[in-house]
Amino acid sequence: MPLLMPAPEPEILSRRSELLTRLAQILPAQNVIADETARRAYECDAFTMYRALPLVVVLPETVPQVQSILALAQEMNVKVVPRGGGTSLSGGSMPLEDGILLGMSKFNRILEIDYENRCARVQPGVQNLAISKAVEHAGFYYAPDPSSQIACSIGGNVAENAGGVHCLKYGLTTNNILGLEVVLMGGEILRLGGKHLDSEMYDLLGLMTGSEGLLGVVTEVTVRILQKPPVARGLLLGFASVEAGARCVGAIIAQGIIPGGMEMMDKATIRAVERFQPCGYPQDAAAIVIVELDGTPAEVDHLVGVVEKIARAEGATTTKVSNSEAERLQFWAGRKNAFPAVSCIGPDYLCMDGTIPRKRLPEVLTGMDELAKKHGLRVANVFHAGDGNLHPLILYDASIEGDIERAENLGADILRLCVAVGGVLTGEHGVGVEKRDLMGEMFNEIDLAQQMRVKCAFDPSGRLNPGKVFPELHRCAELGAMHVVGGALPFPDLPRF
Amino acid sequence: MPLLMPAPEPEILSRRSELLTRLAQILPAQNVIADETARRAYECDAFTMYRALPLVVVLPETVPQVQSILALAQEMNVKVVPRGGGTSLSGGSMPLEDGILLGMSKFNRILEIDYENRCARVQPGVQNLAISKAVEHAGFYYAPDPSSQIACSIGGNVAENAGGVHCLKYGLTTNNILGLEVVLMGGEILRLGGKHLDSEMYDLLGLMTGSEGLLGVVTEVTVRILQKPPVARGLLLGFASVEAGARCVGAIIAQGIIPGGMEMMDKATIRAVERFQPCGYPQDAAAIVIVELDGTPAEVDHLVGVVEKIARAEGATTTKVSNSEAERLQFWAGRKNAFPAVSCIGPDYLCMDGTIPRKRLPEVLTGMDELAKKHGLRVANVFHAGDGNLHPLILYDASIEGDIERAENLGADILRLCVAVGGVLTGEHGVGVEKRDLMGEMFNEIDLAQQMRVKCAFDPSGRLNPGKVFPELHRCAELGAMHVVGGALPFPDLPRF
Repeated sequence: MPLLMPAPEPEILSRRSELLTRLAQILPAQNVIADETARRAYECDAFTMYRALPLVVVLPETVPQVQSILALAQEMNVKVVPRGGGTSLSGGSMPLEDGILLGMSKFNRILEIDYENRCARVQPGVQNLAISKAVEHAGFYYAPDPSSQIACSIGGNVAENAGGVHCLKYGLTTNNILGLEVVLMGGEILRLGGKHLDSEMYDLLGLMTGSEGLLGVVTEVTVRILQKPPVARGLLLGFASVEAGARCVGAIIAQGIIPGGMEMMDKATIRAVERFQPCGYPQDAAAIVIVELDGTPAEVDHLVGVVEKIARAEGATTTKVSNSEAERLQFWAGRKNAFPAVSCIGPDYLCMDGTIPRKRLPEVLTGMDELAKKHGLRVANVFHAGDGNLHPLILYDASIEGDIERAENLGADILRLCVAVGGVLTGEHGVGVEKRDLMGEMFNEIDLAQQMRVKCAFDPSGRLNPGKVFPELHRCAELGAMHVVGGALPFPDLPRF
Repeated sequence: MPLLMPAPEPEILSRRSELLTRLAQILPAQNVIADETARRAYECDAFTMYRALPLVVVLPETVPQVQSILALAQEMNVKVVPRGGGTSLSGGSMPLEDGILLGMSKFNRILEIDYENRCARVQPGVQNLAISKAVEHAGFYYAPDPSSQIACSIGGNVAENAGGVHCLKYGLTTNNILGLEVVLMGGEILRLGGKHLDSEMYDLLGLMTGSEGLLGVVTEVTVRILQKPPVARGLLLGFASVEAGARCVGAIIAQGIIPGGMEMMDKATIRAVERFQPCGYPQDAAAIVIVELDGTPAEVDHLVGVVEKIARAEGATTTKVSNSEAERLQFWAGRKNAFPAVSCIGPDYLCMDGTIPRKRLPEVLTGMDELAKKHGLRVANVFHAGDGNLHPLILYDASIEGDIERAENLGADILRLCVAVGGVLTGEHGVGVEKRDLMGEMFNEIDLAQQMRVKCAFDPSGRLNPGKVFPELHRCAELGAMHVVGGALPFPDLPRF
């Protein structure tokens, strides 16, 4: 599936110097990056398969500057790609050769911490982990914890509805934010939600979360902060087959227990991890499950016993319980190293992201194995088992002719399998450019047309992050027009590619 | 604030017989209610202040029938008001004299119960409580529990994003549904979400939840079902002042405890309840707080001790802990009777619904008291204290000249107070017609114009449930046009009133 992006618009390229002049009226010189070498640093995000040199990079520091940039882009009909920490795994912030790259990294201040209302107001460029660090001394933390949390920004987390290990119990980003300030294309400011629980009218807060930078630019986020559970203990469970591990995961959930985290790794990942940095995982196991239980001491001790019993009943070959904080962290160490460890055996890997109904885990794991054989590649599995969010790592070697295509084809087949069992194409990494052309596997024309009408309600000229999420926009536009009732809502001139 | 509804459109009224003929081609005769006496049964919902005789009532039984009705309405340019159980407290399903009332009561089947994926697929006319009853034998339940749960339908719950006593811990409707099937104006079917955890693209599932019947008609709901906590125990706490009670609520939350429910009642409500049906509430208390703790026995016993200690530290004058299921239900009995009990001392009451940041509770309770004195009326308070969702019951006597207006004015002032402290106009009852004209207190023109653009992305001709939620649509349309970027998204001919 070669990535088809719109050809750069010659008219925009020809007006680059005019654009730079106008941007210089909005921003200090050091906040506009026009030099080619400096722009190279921004040519991709963490989805490194595709690259493009942005037309210009701007780094605003104030909300009025963001408003002016978006108003200017609207006026000059220039595309805009917003960017947070640049850690997107689906190319959500991949730049465009004819587009402004709007970097939000200078919006890096924590504006307010409000313990009584259990929330914090932060700027979008604040790193995910920085929020937890700022409230740690008071015993609080911010729950969603993507693996990239030392680098990713909260604005990007909102754009992608980021998840993490603890989202099984504590929810995704959408469950952990209370308010947003957003600048629309054209420069208008929208304020959504606040410090209170609910909000009337349409749930634009939810709509904006996970909208992948196509609806507006987030300039402030009010996040929910949670009190740290008094105690957390871990269990390290080994199994003779991945199916047995998957059944144990299902049995724990069916018992009514929602662990703080429940992660699974297969043999390929276990071996890679132990070779990278040994952490005591059972090397004879075909799969391990790490379960973390948190809460009050009385509750956790009780639940550890219940989970141990379930694991034994499901045939666990290893059952270790952490008896100290050091031991709990040791259980997690390998999980945290899994991605770099796998990249050492690869030599390259493609990290997929799909979600399935939990009870289909055993058959999907078997199915992925068969697909890998068919394509002649290996897959290492490490994933959020508790919520059915899979992260198969497809191992390939970019130096071997045709291996990239093989990896992409296997990835597409795996995602089709997820959809076939009633799942979805993504879990927590977004659609971006990576899965854009697979959207038709999941959505029909009516679905896509309605999604497009919502996009148009925010950005009718389609200048905000075009080329992402929607497959074949021109087709979508035609379909949309076909389905528009009463003919009252025409589709504007969308980018065609 | 007299309710200004659009005058019935004479052209529609003149085509009533044509409409009836066309409906007879879609539905069996007994599913079309055209007779005036029979239509009277539908002239209002639980917000009884305003009434209107619907043009015709239709009761479809299949999805294709719903599609045909909405396609016909689109074709004939007739308004449609969807209705579930008719228990809306904000007039969300109030009929229109020139509109079809689309009753979904015959969609009353539970289609599938799937314990392994912890969900159930149900039709929208299924009553809220019926879901819990259907899964009770397996130890499961559906969490949101509005007071009207024996009568309200799950489709209406989705439309209003209904809450309830247990939403503090288990979330509102939006946190407890996984999928929807929706028919749009014009007859297209949208399928949103499913049995899996996350869904890519814009969060239309969240957008639809709480959209008050203005975006589409729900024809199927996939709800999350939860395992019943093994144990629940209640605490009945009495306080010498409402402020002390409110401080105790804040202290419990600040300790990191999220009770299954935490409700508060003031002296006026306690007295009304004890007069209606005595249940042992301390009559000398100025406020009582009922706290329910649920979970594993070890956890609950531990937390009961912690809450008792907090209550004593906050000066509780009564601290009772339930030692049996009968005693726990006894604690709740008065809370469940609160609304009918207050209506006995009224003789009439207006139930308000607003949400505030929890820490502002003491000052808002004091402020409401002052407002009530200013307007010369009494207010009884019973509310979801834990999540800051207030339900002041304004007592008035409809037989006294001017009392209705006084009650409405006091209600508006109370809601303005909620907004002034950083809260919102609604908690769980929706905007409907009740608060439509107060929306300007909360939202500015940019906010309302953006909300209107989203509405138009689903229903550009504005025929679905007009007159609800949006204040002064014509003004909104002008504003919208003013703010539309690039002029690409015109506002269609919206109902003007």
